[in-house]
Amino acid sequence: MKLFQIGELCLLEQIRKRFEQHPPNILIGIGDDAAAIKPLNENLLITTDMMVEEVHFNLNFITPYQLGFKLVSVNVSDIYAMGGKPKFLLLNIAMNKNTDKKVMDYFLDGVDEAMKLYGLFLIGGDLSTSCKDITLSATLVGSAKKYIKRSGAKVGDKIYVTGNLGDSACGLELLKKIKRPVHLNKDTQHETPHSIVSALRSQLLIKGLNWNEVEPLLRRHLLPQARNPNSVTKNATSMIDISDGLLIDLSRICDESKVGARIYTENIPLSSELKRVSSYLGISPLRLALSGGEDYELLFTAPAGKKIEATHIGDITESERVIVDILGKERTFSAEGYQHFGVQR
Amino acid sequence: MKLFQIGELCLLEQIRKRFEQHPPNILIGIGDDAAAIKPLNENLLITTDMMVEEVHFNLNFITPYQLGFKLVSVNVSDIYAMGGKPKFLLLNIAMNKNTDKKVMDYFLDGVDEAMKLYGLFLIGGDLSTSCKDITLSATLVGSAKKYIKRSGAKVGDKIYVTGNLGDSACGLELLKKIKRPVHLNKDTQHETPHSIVSALRSQLLIKGLNWNEVEPLLRRHLLPQARNPNSVTKNATSMIDISDGLLIDLSRICDESKVGARIYTENIPLSSELKRVSSYLGISPLRLALSGGEDYELLFTAPAGKKIEATHIGDITESERVIVDILGKERTFSAEGYQHFGVQR
Repeated sequence: MKLFQIGELCLLEQIRKRFEQHPPNILIGIGDDAAAIKPLNENLLITTDMMVEEVHFNLNFITPYQLGFKLVSVNVSDIYAMGGKPKFLLLNIAMNKNTDKKVMDYFLDGVDEAMKLYGLFLIGGDLSTSCKDITLSATLVGSAKKYIKRSGAKVGDKIYVTGNLGDSACGLELLKKIKRPVHLNKDTQHETPHSIVSALRSQLLIKGLNWNEVEPLLRRHLLPQARNPNSVTKNATSMIDISDGLLIDLSRICDESKVGARIYTENIPLSSELKRVSSYLGISPLRLALSGGEDYELLFTAPAGKKIEATHIGDITESERVIVDILGKERTFSAEGYQHFGVQR
Repeated sequence: MKLFQIGELCLLEQIRKRFEQHPPNILIGIGDDAAAIKPLNENLLITTDMMVEEVHFNLNFITPYQLGFKLVSVNVSDIYAMGGKPKFLLLNIAMNKNTDKKVMDYFLDGVDEAMKLYGLFLIGGDLSTSCKDITLSATLVGSAKKYIKRSGAKVGDKIYVTGNLGDSACGLELLKKIKRPVHLNKDTQHETPHSIVSALRSQLLIKGLNWNEVEPLLRRHLLPQARNPNSVTKNATSMIDISDGLLIDLSRICDESKVGARIYTENIPLSSELKRVSSYLGISPLRLALSGGEDYELLFTAPAGKKIEATHIGDITESERVIVDILGKERTFSAEGYQHFGVQR
């Protein structure tokens, strides 16, 4: 069945029924001119992020389910990056009317799964026809007693990341070889890992490659989970989520805090899967970790001397932005990463 | 200059500088992972609306300035339709990287003008490349002590609209004849009304047509202003803004309130411009008023016996949905109006 065979009003009714359960602080959810929520007693956080077909995603590489999951995760990641609790979601969906209804359904399955993971409630949105490409956006409302800005880093603070970097970018490189969507185990359909690995083995001429080292990288790219900041908010002086790449996002902290940074490549946390698979791919794992995006780990600063559950990758300095390699050689860095409207793409 | 020659980061910086002034209850505006706002002591209202090129608008008919103005107005209208005060705006903009920078600038001029009109502050958003078409969305946060739902209409209530209907749809019909954007006087560029009227006169073979009767209709379509509900919130039992057409939006009130409605065509307020120009166009003004969208007047119900500053167009009944014409002839109506993914378009 195609979307035009069901129509906006019927589809809206289905979405409303599916997501109508909500806690009593939501006075009006889906189905009125606006949602209404009881006053929150904490500071209100609001973020919005778009995902545009052929720009942010390609349905040859990602399933609709993964797309829905990811759209929610990237927005949650922004609320987490402020030290906040995500709460209420609004969804804007523009799809061509000839799109198979299943694409919408699987997309909503992914949204639903992520909403459950993060404890969110859908309170509104908008549906529209598009001429060709799918354009998605989500707006997420959260709250925080104490919020953490990008601008609070102080000279002498230490720089931390909450987990391994580069996995997502490596997952994307793998997908470019696989050249089709990979259904992961929490996905609507199940995949035979064997066929994926076979495709990769023949492409990469590598016999040793196995599903256990490929799957986590694909998962990091296709079904990214935002990092809950609970254990770090107490001490963080500044924070951002790594969506565009370590260097560009660290540059943002430096810009906003008017400080410099010195990071040590040997401290950058790299997964064993990244190390192995990037060598098969002939790509430097460090390059993926420094400039690859979409890891959705938190990058933050905290004063020296605090006990922090994260990896120390460098220090905040007066002004220069420096990467120190394993031999002690230094180079300066600037905001290397993806930029919209840029000439790179 | 094209967008790719300026790039996302530089553009973002320009937008941030332009819109950075904000009141002290905005703790963080543009430029962090999320905006932060001090707790509001009223109920929170949130709405979001998309505008997709070739679906909601066509740049052969509307200027970028008007597009920006309209995007804000349609969202404000949703907050007003809840009886709320609009406050904080987030903007998502996806444009092709080869788009002229001026398109973005004029669009932001229109956004800015509307923000000033409604007293809004820009607190966030997202910029993205698009492959081809422009996709816009806005999220608007407002507040209300007492909010008005669609579901509150009671049998015996009277049905009101705040102003003339059909003007916007008639403006659109005119634009289809004019076949190019019309710059109105508050627009970035000025227009010679003469050339527009000449084009229309020759197309419609009408000598008498003049700018004074054309301009208000074009303005209602191109630069719609949302209706402040202040004078009606006290008495309204249900409310909606007319975005998709009187019949479809009244049907929504009936659906949500589980009631019927009886409206009288002779009571539907029609502007003198609509009456004159629709006759030139050979279109029934009543059809435009009943099924044309985008008037952004408020449609509401209130108990009988209240002094209401709006036009009484009918009454809430038990169940049937009836239009009574000037001769007393009755017909039932259903949700006639635009539907996304529908087969009509």
